[in-house]
Formats: sequence, structure tokens, C-alpha cells
Amino acid sequence: MRILVLGGDGYLGWPTAMYLSQRGHDVGVVDNFSRRLWDNELGAESLVPILPLQERVDLWKELTGKHIDVHIGDLNDYTFLEPIVRDFKPEAIVHYGEQRSAPYSMIDRRHAVFTQVNNVAGTLNVAYAIADHVPDCHLVKLGTMGEYGTPNIDIEEGFITIEHKGRTDTLPYPKQPGSFYHLSKVHDSHNLMFCCKIWGIRSTDLNQGVVYGVETDESKLDERLRTRFDYDGVFGTVLNRFLVQAVVGTPLTVYGKGGQTRGFLDIRDTLACVELAILNPPKQGEYRVFNQFTEQFSVGDLALAVQETGKACGLEVTIDNLANPRVESEDHYYNAINTCLLGLGLQPHYLSDTLLESVIHIVQQYSNRVNPRLIQPAVNWRETGSK
Amino acid sequence: MRILVLGGDGYLGWPTAMYLSQRGHDVGVVDNFSRRLWDNELGAESLVPILPLQERVDLWKELTGKHIDVHIGDLNDYTFLEPIVRDFKPEAIVHYGEQRSAPYSMIDRRHAVFTQVNNVAGTLNVAYAIADHVPDCHLVKLGTMGEYGTPNIDIEEGFITIEHKGRTDTLPYPKQPGSFYHLSKVHDSHNLMFCCKIWGIRSTDLNQGVVYGVETDESKLDERLRTRFDYDGVFGTVLNRFLVQAVVGTPLTVYGKGGQTRGFLDIRDTLACVELAILNPPKQGEYRVFNQFTEQFSVGDLALAVQETGKACGLEVTIDNLANPRVESEDHYYNAINTCLLGLGLQPHYLSDTLLESVIHIVQQYSNRVNPRLIQPAVNWRETGSK
Repeated sequence: MRILVLGGDGYLGWPTAMYLSQRGHDVGVVDNFSRRLWDNELGAESLVPILPLQERVDLWKELTGKHIDVHIGDLNDYTFLEPIVRDFKPEAIVHYGEQRSAPYSMIDRRHAVFTQVNNVAGTLNVAYAIADHVPDCHLVKLGTMGEYGTPNIDIEEGFITIEHKGRTDTLPYPKQPGSFYHLSKVHDSHNLMFCCKIWGIRSTDLNQGVVYGVETDESKLDERLRTRFDYDGVFGTVLNRFLVQAVVGTPLTVYGKGGQTRGFLDIRDTLACVELAILNPPKQGEYRVFNQFTEQFSVGDLALAVQETGKACGLEVTIDNLANPRVESEDHYYNAINTCLLGLGLQPHYLSDTLLESVIHIVQQYSNRVNPRLIQPAVNWRETGSK
Repeated sequence: MRILVLGGDGYLGWPTAMYLSQRGHDVGVVDNFSRRLWDNELGAESLVPILPLQERVDLWKELTGKHIDVHIGDLNDYTFLEPIVRDFKPEAIVHYGEQRSAPYSMIDRRHAVFTQVNNVAGTLNVAYAIADHVPDCHLVKLGTMGEYGTPNIDIEEGFITIEHKGRTDTLPYPKQPGSFYHLSKVHDSHNLMFCCKIWGIRSTDLNQGVVYGVETDESKLDERLRTRFDYDGVFGTVLNRFLVQAVVGTPLTVYGKGGQTRGFLDIRDTLACVELAILNPPKQGEYRVFNQFTEQFSVGDLALAVQETGKACGLEVTIDNLANPRVESEDHYYNAINTCLLGLGLQPHYLSDTLLESVIHIVQQYSNRVNPRLIQPAVNWRETGSK
């Protein structure tokens, strides 16, 4: 299939592009390198050194004989996006092309507005380009489990049947997102459901959990194909960050009590989920939601798991419960349904000591690149402006 | 109280400013005249001639001795908004300052993106200004009943208690908005609920029905104080449009079967509701939702009511069922709760022959200004671009 990967230079976009290319799809990637720009802004850098996108693509060609198309530009510029969609005629678009950090969106007003405008308007452009030029194309949109917040009832996959005063309807699942970034994903979800309804286009909203890991089958071909790995307080997701802290010997930074429970998945499962969605598209006009995670953990449990595995690797790992910079429940009910992707055949890679150990080994390989100062949380949800 | 009215030059903003001023509040208005600009774009004009805002304010001062502050600029420009909020120190902000037409938002991609960015980013700016400078200030934000769509269960006021698999929670009411404009209001609602939670500011989201009428107690002082009255296919709301069609002798344009049922209210009740919300503020950190309408009608029923009143006024009124330019149910369950504002003491002006007749008389006064070509629906929800 012809597949366009938006945000194809990013943590998940690049491995997805390789995975789909390896499996015989005709892949094009779109990116404006804003993720690299935000690194410059924050004085941060991927722990794993990453090549320029163009060099990665050349290397991929050299190693596999497979070509990946590259388009450099901004989804918010319709004069850039439209001809790509019109000419490449994708049968599926995988959309990672958004600002994806909650803390980044909470830095101050400017970053909040930027995140919402960038994500919402960019996605509207993608939807219009599909409706205008490739109405059969399947938009596989990355959402987040964080759209749901932590309700006191089970989290269903996008919709919930409600009985109320003797009547019944199946309605969009109520959303309680916890940052301006998460809010932008909720806005996208509402917009896309509407676009499918009025134009008859089709979309799968993948409400993804927190991704961990770095190596995929494709990156094993050559270290230089590895994707970025973030450990800083703004873009580093929790488990990856803990593993870096374990290696460099600083305490794991658990926010608050650590009872925050979330869905998690291995980076290899992200790739498999995306392809399963592509190979099993919704029908025209359908908007559907899959909850994309394989296991639920509390942050505190993850810290303990890293501590234990660290010990087995000869590392002394301590845990620090910091004042929580976020406004969130630290002790709550959490049970989310994730049967759709399993039903399509997902074979999960569950979190195991082996995985934790293998990531620790990669982190050790680059440990001289760690800047511990970047790991501390610097963005406070309660303030309107952070330094 | 010191009250800032955002969008104070508009259909509801100007009458609200006068009403609050008349009742002893210290009122400032903010507007960037974009509503007048969109008239230029569409080649349309208010049926009731409207003075420049500055002249209206001078006339108001002359007639009542009361001063209204005027600030001309864009809410999306924080360097404009911030000093106004910082210096005027409003105790309440009434926020009408958004693009408010569903068809306008559906014209094409550019208008869709404009509407969402303008409304969402402008409202984020207002929230930040409050949190930064007047954290006690009560934000009275105009939402719309259209946020809910037409679910098959009763529409509660913002939140619904859901029992699901033996557990219970009270969650934001699921939203199914029907245009990019309505979607922008849903985005605002999610954003504001979050702002209240993290910063402890307070807001009332007034999910308003379709407003009809033009005259208020204040505009009766002098015809030149009257607010704008829109009848065109883009900005004219349904009942006002029908009344113009009745007067000029063109058929009432009912979209589809006319079974679309919505909440409605008299313009005078809008003003009373806004003041009731202001005088009964939520507590710090609270985000609450009031459904602001007084009666439910189907579009078809309204057409019949206008036909009947027209007959009594000597007008021959016919009804045309046009192909529906919107994508919406034309035959559906609809029952929305509206007890909060009644509980605070709202005394509704129900729709009566007298009201319809009085609006007909005003329309007759200006009937030579009607351009019938502007009334036909020119924006189709199923197309990505309209002329």
C-alpha cells in the first residue's frame, strides 16, 4: 500500500516508516524537524545520536534496497501539504505529526497556544487534503489514552453506551484530559469524528498509552538506524526516563505518591498496532477508536521494577517522590479496555526484565551523553509561566 | 461590579453592555470589528442600521449619563488583551468574542481553520490573562446548545452521572457538535474546565440556544441604540430569518424536513441570564455549565408560527422545504434540561404572537434594506469548498 507517515523523523514516526517499508509498503515521510528544533530550545538532545533524516533514508536504501520518499515542510502550510497528498495518493496516512509533550504545552501561554493551534489546525489540513484528493484514504491518527483522564468507571474504546432516565444511546466517551497537549488530542478527536460524518472519509483514532523501548527489528540492522530516545523532563516519557536515571545513578523521579496508573506498550507493539489498523480499515464514513496499550502500571510500580532490574544489572537505584508538578489524582481507579487491537491479532510484547535490561544496555552505551540537569521537572501545571 | 464584555459590538454584546451599564455596573467593551468585516466579505449588512461603536457609546452617555469603556483590538493579540485585563481589573468577563456562525466555519478549509484558531486561541488568551492578573474574576463564557448535538437521551447541564458496569462517576456530558464552529465551542469548554482545575480560576459556560428578537429595554430609549439584526444565510439565525422572509414575501427556507428541534430564547432573556450568572458566581476553581434557553421548538413548528402571525399581520407566507445543506438528523429525540438559570430566578419571555408581531414591525421599518439573494443557503456541509 502507499502510506504517508506524518512526523516521520520522530521517536515513533521513523521506526514506523522503516517497519512499513520493510513489510513491502510504499512509504513516504513528512516532517518539518520541529522536534529537533524543540531540542535546541530546551538545550536537550536524544540520548541515542540520530542521523539527519536524509542520511537515515539513504542508509535504509543501502541496507534494504527500499526507497522512502522524504518531504520536508509543515502540515500547517496547506500549500505544502496539498500537493503531496494529491500526487502521492496515499491509501493510508499515519499521523504522528504533532507536538506531543504535555510539559512542553504547559510551559507558558505561548507554548499552550502553539501546541493547540499546531496540532488542531495541522490535523484539519490533513482531513481536508484527504477529503479533497483521496477520499478513500484511511487516516490513522495518533491520539492518547490521556484523552480520557482517570474516570471512576471503566474506560471503553472511544464510545460508551449510556442508559439515562429510561433511554439509551451510544455516545463519545467523556474526556478529561490533563494538559493543553492532551486537550489538543481531544479537539482532534472531535474534529475527525465530524469530518468522517460530513465527508464520508474514514479514520482510526489510536488512543495510545505511554510507549517505552527503543530497538525494533529494523533498527537492529544497523545502530545508525536507531530512533531518538528522550529522557529529559519535558519530552522523556516515564519509563525511558527511569531507565536513564537508573544508569547514571540519580534517583528515579516519581511525581507525588506514584499511584498514577496508565496504559503502557512496547515500541514494537506501536508499529504492529499501526499496521493492524491499516490492514483492517474502517468502512467509508466511519470514525473508530482503538485503545492502544498492552498493560497498565502505576508509576510507583514501574519505579520498583526498574529498581529491581537495576539491582540485577549491578546498579544501585533509589527512588525520589517529588512534589507533583502536575495537577492529577495520585490514587484513583483505572481500568481501560483494549480488546480491539488484540481482536485484530496483536501479539503483545509484555514488559519483562529482558526488555528493561536491553534498554539499560543501550542507555549504558550512551551514558556519557546524559545531562542529569535536564531530567528534573521544570514545568509546573499550577503556574501560568515556567522558566 | 467591573465587567468586561468581549465582542461588545455584536448582536448580543452591545445589548449586554447597555443592560449591565444601565443596571449600575462599570462596563468596558472589547471588539475588533471582525463581525463588520465578515459582512463586507459576504456582501451582507445588518437589517437594522448600526452606528459605529464609538458613536453608540457616546449616545449612551448622552442619554443615560453612563460611561462605557471601549477597547479596539483582537483577543488573539495578547499584547493587546493583557494590559486591558491587568488595568481594568474586571470582576467578571462576559465572552462573546468569537466567530459565531456555523455556515461561516463551513465555507472552506480556510474558514474552518480560522474559526477554530480564532475562537480557541482567543479564549486561551482570556483564561491566561485572568489567571495572571485577576484570578478571582468570573469568566462568563458563551457556549452553545449545539455542543451537545442531538443525543437520544436527555441533555443535562454540562455533566452527566453515568453508571457503568457497577461503578458510577459524574463526567462531562458527551459532545456531538455539528459544524467546525460548534466544535470550536466544545474545544473551549474542555480547555476552560481544565484551566479552572489547574489554576483555580472560575467560569460559567452558558450553553445558549438560538436567540431571536432585537429590541431590549435599553434600545427602546433611542432607535439608534438598536443592535444588529442578521437575516442572511450565513449569520442569520433561523427565526429572525423567517421573519424577514415573511415580510419580503419570499418563502421561509426550512432545511430538509424541518424536524430539527433546538432550544430557543428571547434576546432579553440572554441579558438576564448573563447577569444572573454574574451575580451568582461559581466558587474559585469551579467550572459550571448552564443550558441557556427557555423553550424547545422544531424548525418546522417555527415556520408555521411565523406563517400564522404573518397572516394576522396581513402577510401571505409560504414555506419551502429546501434540500438540507447541513448534515444533521431531521427527526430525532430532543429533551434538554434548563433548570439552573430558572433556579437562579430567570423570568422567561416565552415566544408569543406579540413578540413575533413586534419583530415583524421592526423588519417592515427596514424592509427596503433586504437583499433576498443573501438569504439562500450557500454553504454545503458535504463539500470542502463553497463559493
